[in-house]
Amino acid sequence: MSTAKPIDIGDFESEMAALGTKARTAAQALATTSADTRRAAIEAMAKTLAAGSDQILRANAEDMSDARAAKLNAAMLDRLELDAERVGAMVAGIREVAALDDPLGRMLGEWTRPNGLRIERVSIPIGVIGIIYESRPNVTADAGVLCLMSGNATILRCGSESFRTSSAIAKCLRHGLDTAGLLEDCIQLVPTRERAAVGILLTMDQDIDIIVPRGGRSLIERVREDSRVPVLAHLDGICHIYVHAAANADKACDVILNAKMRRTGICGAAETLLVDRAILDMLPKILAPLHEVGCEVRGDAEVCSLDNQAVAASKVDWDTEYLDAIISVGVVDGLDSAISHVNRHGSHHTDAIISEDGAAAERFLNEVDSAIVVHNASTQFADGGEFGMGAEIGISNGKLHARGPVGVEQLTTYKYKVHGNGQVRP
Amino acid sequence: MSTAKPIDIGDFESEMAALGTKARTAAQALATTSADTRRAAIEAMAKTLAAGSDQILRANAEDMSDARAAKLNAAMLDRLELDAERVGAMVAGIREVAALDDPLGRMLGEWTRPNGLRIERVSIPIGVIGIIYESRPNVTADAGVLCLMSGNATILRCGSESFRTSSAIAKCLRHGLDTAGLLEDCIQLVPTRERAAVGILLTMDQDIDIIVPRGGRSLIERVREDSRVPVLAHLDGICHIYVHAAANADKACDVILNAKMRRTGICGAAETLLVDRAILDMLPKILAPLHEVGCEVRGDAEVCSLDNQAVAASKVDWDTEYLDAIISVGVVDGLDSAISHVNRHGSHHTDAIISEDGAAAERFLNEVDSAIVVHNASTQFADGGEFGMGAEIGISNGKLHARGPVGVEQLTTYKYKVHGNGQVRP
Repeated sequence: MSTAKPIDIGDFESEMAALGTKARTAAQALATTSADTRRAAIEAMAKTLAAGSDQILRANAEDMSDARAAKLNAAMLDRLELDAERVGAMVAGIREVAALDDPLGRMLGEWTRPNGLRIERVSIPIGVIGIIYESRPNVTADAGVLCLMSGNATILRCGSESFRTSSAIAKCLRHGLDTAGLLEDCIQLVPTRERAAVGILLTMDQDIDIIVPRGGRSLIERVREDSRVPVLAHLDGICHIYVHAAANADKACDVILNAKMRRTGICGAAETLLVDRAILDMLPKILAPLHEVGCEVRGDAEVCSLDNQAVAASKVDWDTEYLDAIISVGVVDGLDSAISHVNRHGSHHTDAIISEDGAAAERFLNEVDSAIVVHNASTQFADGGEFGMGAEIGISNGKLHARGPVGVEQLTTYKYKVHGNGQVRP
Repeated sequence: MSTAKPIDIGDFESEMAALGTKARTAAQALATTSADTRRAAIEAMAKTLAAGSDQILRANAEDMSDARAAKLNAAMLDRLELDAERVGAMVAGIREVAALDDPLGRMLGEWTRPNGLRIERVSIPIGVIGIIYESRPNVTADAGVLCLMSGNATILRCGSESFRTSSAIAKCLRHGLDTAGLLEDCIQLVPTRERAAVGILLTMDQDIDIIVPRGGRSLIERVREDSRVPVLAHLDGICHIYVHAAANADKACDVILNAKMRRTGICGAAETLLVDRAILDMLPKILAPLHEVGCEVRGDAEVCSLDNQAVAASKVDWDTEYLDAIISVGVVDGLDSAISHVNRHGSHHTDAIISEDGAAAERFLNEVDSAIVVHNASTQFADGGEFGMGAEIGISNGKLHARGPVGVEQLTTYKYKVHGNGQVRP
């Protein structure tokens, strides 16, 4: 007769604490490595990952079989599934990170005081980064390697449905680190599916410096509310496009269609369209391409009166991130009214103005309080790769530390190095 | 018959919420003002403050009379007391802030993507800053004006013993803002001594972007633990000086005496001295000046065996911020051992090495994980003014957003401005 062993929470907490201690030790050793050492380790990880492809795919097949039995929906199954091509893409993605500029040891400032003290402000790693993610197992490699390139140790907590796959990936990465002569604890995966692990991670403020949650709204909300460790994330991407009185109609149509429909499920997708009363006659032309591709238009009373395909928006629509082929459309009375709508209903993520009037655009860019403000281009450019910053671990809409795409540079902090010759303070 | 009116917590909370809303509105207007406008407002505030000197001193006399009746100790009374000279110093201090470089609108980065998108990363204000401070009423002016220069609105919460004085100062500042055509709500003082106000401020994460606590350990601990708003502060300044094998004895003596004794009550004061075993013969010479000025030496067994004036340190001494004429002194076996002691027992604030060996010093500066690391100079230089950054609102030993002195530059964040010409994302 077999009985399930009851979980001893005391043991479990000490196991989690041990992860923290090992991460801190690894981070200290990693902090002073050269870029060459970190790049060589990434290359070693790319090789061990490629070599471990069969084991990873076997583990993934088991995860997929459980996931199908648990009746996960098609989108979740697709995010979970790996094949040789996807493993290949993961390996290629890792190698791209090694090609980034070294974010460490950048001289952010250097000056000499009248008393002869020379002060340098130098970029250094943050330390230990906790990543809590859902189904995509490739995050194990992407996030682990991005943190490593910026000199940080990671503690990764994968979704339970990808546990076998993520474990197999982490094993390959750690083997690669070891091969390259770095501590394998630079990358650790929480070795249990136990749900309580997330709660414990969020309290480990002595050994984890930032938590980056990647996943759905409920995960991010929970992490934000419960974490004693600072969190880098964004909860919503309620992105706006404002068509100003001086907009070019063709640009407006192209940009709006792309911003809404290129991919509806990403955080930079537009959710609300504000049309200036001065160019209301442009409205049918603007909405036609959206209707054509099957986008639902939820309009205010005026929009509905001008467009018989539109349905009436309710109050909550103006604060909703649809992540779907739906757009709310409202009429505003000029630039000030648009800016105030965006600041009130937006999520400080990414917002755009379409206008040929440079001064009006500049006011919008200055006065809209968002991480990314865009003139005459799609909100879907809100992405570290599109910004030329290389891979990103996520996008932040907080105001402290990092705003917008969080790439290797944003995973660093700084210290002041003060060089003296015996100076004392008067 | 008069009865005390019971506090209606509901009303009180809505009053606090109203402060938040007014601060947010003021911050939005302030964010896009020019440096000239902000400098003119600071000059106007300096004038109204100077003109209000009599009222401020009358309010201070009442606070002092209550404080004496409440038997506050001499140090607290001294921090609370103002005279014409101290008001004059406050006015002069404000004018110095107006002379700082404008921290807003700095181009932190600017690049053009292959698709023609031009991306700018520009410094902007954080928004609304909450300052919670204890007895010194001059913080009302110092902090309020420092935040204003960096484009931020403030909500100030003074200590109850300085309530009348701080109110009088705030009234002058707000009158100055009004004179200069800015919203007086750029600077607001919580209009009650009610203790519950602090707890409410810490929950106002919608309308306050950072909280900066200034005061004793219990205040900072409480704010750190309870705040839903991010906190910029340091709890401890357990600063170390390590005398390396290649130290110059005279420099060591001068720097140690200054670092420990110049002012014992500031966060940059040294608390622990680590002496390398290789130069133990230097120990009597190093400790003599400390004994001479009456500094208590708490040594490990070896130090006590070499110095009969030393008393035995207990285990807690190595983790204690004395803020007094006491120093713990231990012997370490070389550089690695010193670095590991500092990283384990320090508070990541400011730590120094004394050595003529540049390579050893560089390793100490690189491997000690502190906001400020110092070679051959006093730890008491840990100060925004001494760094040439102008006035500071405090020192941070956190790793996110700002480390070390928090001046006007550290009170900013950034946004990305993306300039396009109709680009859509493929």
